[in-house]
This record gives sequence, structure tokens and C-alpha cells, in this order.
Amino acid sequence: MTMIIPDVQSAFHRLQGHVHRTPILTSEKMNALFSGVQVYFKAEMFQKVGAFKARGAMNTLLALKEKNALPDRIVSVSSGNHAAAVAWASSQFNIPATIYMGAESSPLKRTATASYGATVVVTKDRFEAEALVAQEKANGAFFLPPFDHDDVIAGQGTSCYEALQDLKHVDAVFVACGGGGWFSGTYLATQLLCPTAKVYAVEPELADDAYRSYKTGQIQRLTSIPMTVADGVRTPSICDRTFQFIQKCHDFITVDENAILSWAKKMNQYLKVIAEPTSALGLAGLEKAIAKGDFKAGDRVLIMLSGGNLDPETQKKICDAD
Amino acid sequence: MTMIIPDVQSAFHRLQGHVHRTPILTSEKMNALFSGVQVYFKAEMFQKVGAFKARGAMNTLLALKEKNALPDRIVSVSSGNHAAAVAWASSQFNIPATIYMGAESSPLKRTATASYGATVVVTKDRFEAEALVAQEKANGAFFLPPFDHDDVIAGQGTSCYEALQDLKHVDAVFVACGGGGWFSGTYLATQLLCPTAKVYAVEPELADDAYRSYKTGQIQRLTSIPMTVADGVRTPSICDRTFQFIQKCHDFITVDENAILSWAKKMNQYLKVIAEPTSALGLAGLEKAIAKGDFKAGDRVLIMLSGGNLDPETQKKICDAD
Repeated sequence: MTMIIPDVQSAFHRLQGHVHRTPILTSEKMNALFSGVQVYFKAEMFQKVGAFKARGAMNTLLALKEKNALPDRIVSVSSGNHAAAVAWASSQFNIPATIYMGAESSPLKRTATASYGATVVVTKDRFEAEALVAQEKANGAFFLPPFDHDDVIAGQGTSCYEALQDLKHVDAVFVACGGGGWFSGTYLATQLLCPTAKVYAVEPELADDAYRSYKTGQIQRLTSIPMTVADGVRTPSICDRTFQFIQKCHDFITVDENAILSWAKKMNQYLKVIAEPTSALGLAGLEKAIAKGDFKAGDRVLIMLSGGNLDPETQKKICDAD
Repeated sequence: MTMIIPDVQSAFHRLQGHVHRTPILTSEKMNALFSGVQVYFKAEMFQKVGAFKARGAMNTLLALKEKNALPDRIVSVSSGNHAAAVAWASSQFNIPATIYMGAESSPLKRTATASYGATVVVTKDRFEAEALVAQEKANGAFFLPPFDHDDVIAGQGTSCYEALQDLKHVDAVFVACGGGGWFSGTYLATQLLCPTAKVYAVEPELADDAYRSYKTGQIQRLTSIPMTVADGVRTPSICDRTFQFIQKCHDFITVDENAILSWAKKMNQYLKVIAEPTSALGLAGLEKAIAKGDFKAGDRVLIMLSGGNLDPETQKKICDAD
């Protein structure tokens, strides 16, 4: 594959006025839980559609518009937030969108997607959804993929780009890894603005395909969709485009379901935000990295929070967490 | 009583660098729930101690410091957030503080108060707490009251002052009324920056002493502490100092417990914030005002959100709300 570097800086300028510049949250009590590490939380729950995914979808369509190449019809596949993001971004250009979502996707996110005017087709699982999208694509629809696209990756990278503009220097960045689009964009943003920062990828133990890909040097594909509570990373596999960047992470950490729920709850208590479990991956990863001795008090760590879209059922699980 | 106008503008300048300038949140989906009214939410859950109360306590101590009159010992009484605020503000000046809290106060807020280094004394109820504070005051301690003090009122007013600096014009402001300190400061802030704005007071039906005071023109005092889920307004009565401003509200609205919980939950879903039930009073009040025909689509309304400190038990009630 020819190596093209997704252009995060251009995406940042292109997206001005189209997406929110989200705040960075801090909490002295949260720092105390992390042994005195100074933790900065980039809060993408305050982004359009409640998740960073708005950035990649909008950047892709804006880039097409610059080339007078906006499509007549858009299709996509997603476990949740990307679906809503494509529906929202398509609606901004009055382009009809159809989103294929596996039965394992979040019901709340399906409702949100439909609320932006998209047609939502619920399929048996993610694999069937992917097959149907391939068919639509063959019939001429534009496929706006969740991660395997340079403009999607560049758009996702703008959240970390903004955060590093605000923070200048950090020692490390923690980011969740599903298909690897957000990881890749985040990695590229650090290369632009703070290349000494160590970038950590974090994934649930229950859905550790990217971790195993990283460890073996070969893309590993899940054969069934893992029901981790972190529904944002229920992706069957990464892709070549994202793997090239995932291989450059400083470390790849996997975390268990209890840790995810517990950190999601602590974000309620100390940051006063609603965070979906995928947002908690970074915190659970930092906890493990600190236990390994990777950080000392006073180090500056940026944690990327993916979003805040929660099913009532998931919110109850977080309420009941330790 | 000589009429002294608490000085919100001076408090605003005095507090620079001591408290956070909190963000204003918006949500198109929330606007849709309010019939197209453009609603702006001043998010004091992101304030120090997780509530606006940090402003009044800190302003009072800073004003004393300016006069070289900082006390040796501070006492107070509170149903929750003011307790934590006094504990926090006192700790910033290394002054020992003792807070008397009735058994009806929130356990989480008692723990938070102690975490800032204050001594917490839990009494049978608010009335006993008030009696003990009076005794301490007679013995020479400085009493930093929750609302009956010009510098407290001026400090609380700075949240609306900031919001109106950001928003310029609004048609109305909705604010919860417990003892009336926040209402008074908010009213005074509107007089400074947007005097045409209608200021609405909102109180739970279960704790409607201020509403009945407003209606009868005489301060009404509760004889038992009402167990409204909005624990921030479990105050037995307003006072002369706050009543003079409460009488000037555009309207006073009372709301039921279900509405409070339901709007607290909607803030989770649409604003992605943790809001304590007292924060939901303004939303429940706006809903009723819209039903009465007070607003039309496109009107600009500011809702003051008091804070985000929730007991696990209260959070479960919000999870289970409609």
C-alpha cells in the first residue's frame, strides 16, 4: 500500500465552524486517584452527535465538497456513534444516507441515527451489515467507512490536535482502539504538535483483536462480535491503513469490563460528565500503566474521551459499578 | 433594614483566578424539547466543589482578607454544597472550619466537606444545626452563612454575571430558590447586564416556603425539613435580605418531584452532564412557563444549573426516572 499520511492539520482548518471545539476537563480529585499524575480529559461527549465521530464524517464530506464530488447517496456501517455521525453529516448537505447496523449495536445509537434523518437497517450482525454495504457500494452508493479512509482518520485526529494546541506539552496520550481510526488520527496529531508524547492504545480484553494484531505483527480478525460494554469498539478488525500507525504505539494495554464500568462511574462523580464506557478505556489503561511504573506524580497525561451516548441499560450498569 | 445592594460586579473581579469560569452548554435536541426556545445552560457542576456555592464562600473570605479581617475560626450550617464550599474556601486560607449539617443533608456532601479538611458535625436536623452555630457565633467564631450575607449573595451572582457577559441578551433567566441567595445574586446580575430579562424563581412543591412567602408577602417558615429530592433547597426559610429580591421575580413556579428527576435525566442524555436534582428545577420551571404560553420559539432563555454532586441513591433515582 502506498503510504499516504492523513492530513490532520488540513482537517482541523476545514472543520472550523462545522464541529465544536470541545473543552478539556481536569479534577484534582481525579489526579489524586492517578497517584498525582496531572490528567487532562478531552471531552468529546460535548461534540456534535455526542462523540468524536462527527469529526471524521464531516471532514470526509467537506473534502469531497471541495472537489465538487459530493455523492448523491451515502451508506455506512457502524456499531453506533459513526452511524449517527454519518447521518448528521449527510443531513448537513441534504444527502440521503442509509446506515447498516448489526443487532449488537446500541439501540439508543440506532434511534439517534434515525433522528438525523437517515434510514437505519438493522442486520443480524456486523458481518451481514458489512456485506450489505459492499453490495450498495457496488450499486453506486458512496461508502463513508468508520475508519478505513484517510479523511476519516484525519478528521478524528483533530480532537487530539485541538487538545495539544491547548496543552502544549504532554508526556503521554491514551486513546481507545476499535478499528483504529481514532488511534491513527490521534497518533498523527501528536506527531505534528508533540512528537515526544508516548501514545498508548487501549482495548477491552473481551475485544482484543487489535492488541493481538499489535503483538503478532499480523492483523487478527474476530470471528464473532464481542459484547464488551464498550460498544464503541465492537469492531471485528482493524485494517492495513490503521495498522501502520497502531504498530507505532508506545504500548498497547487491554482492560477488563469491571475496570471500564468503574472508571465510567468515577467520571460521573469527579468530572460530572456522562461518559460512555468506551470513554473509560483510557482511564483504565492509565491505571494499569501507572501500576507498571510508567508515570510519576506531576507527569502530564492526556486522555481522549470518545463520547457520552449511553443506553439506559448501560447507564444502570455504571450506576451499579464499584 | 437599610437597603445595601450586594456588589456582584466587584465580586466578579475579586474572584478572578479563584473560581472557574464555567461553560455554557447548548443542545439542539434540548431546544426541541422546549418548543424551539433557545436554551443556554450555565454549568456550575464544573465549578470548584462541583457547585456555584464556591463563589459566595470564596467572595466572602476574599472580601474579609481585603480588610485584613480574616477570622481565626469559621463555622457554618448547610444542607450540602455550601458546607463543601466553606470547607474548601477556608482551606485556601488555612483557617479551621466546623460545619454543622442536619441528618437530612446528603451523605456524599458530608464526605466531600470533610475531604476539604473541615470538621463535620451531623446534628438531628437543620434546626439543631442552626442552634449550635448560633452558640458558636456567640463564642467568637465567624459564621459564614449560606445566604443571609451580602458578600455571599454577590459571589453567587457572579455565575449569572459571567453567563450574561457571554450571552449579551436573554429574554429570561430561570434559577432555583432555596434560601434565596442564588436567586438574589442572579437577579442583581441581570439588573447590571440585561435588566429587561425576566427572572423566574423555581422551587419544589414539597418545599414551597419561598413560593408561599412570595404569594403572601410575608416570610413563611417550614416547620419540618422537606425531603424533596432537590437536596440543595432543603432550607427552612428565606430571610429578609433575600426576600427583598425574591419579591421582584417575574414569576415564581413550583414543580413536582417527578418533573425534577425527569429533567435531571434529560440533562444526562442531551447535555452529557451529571446534574444534581436542584439543577433540574430551572428546566422543570421553564417547561411549566412554556405550557402557560410565556415563551415562543426563538426566545433566548438562560437556565442556571446549580451543581453536580449526587449521592449514589439519588443517581439511581435519576437512572430510573421517566
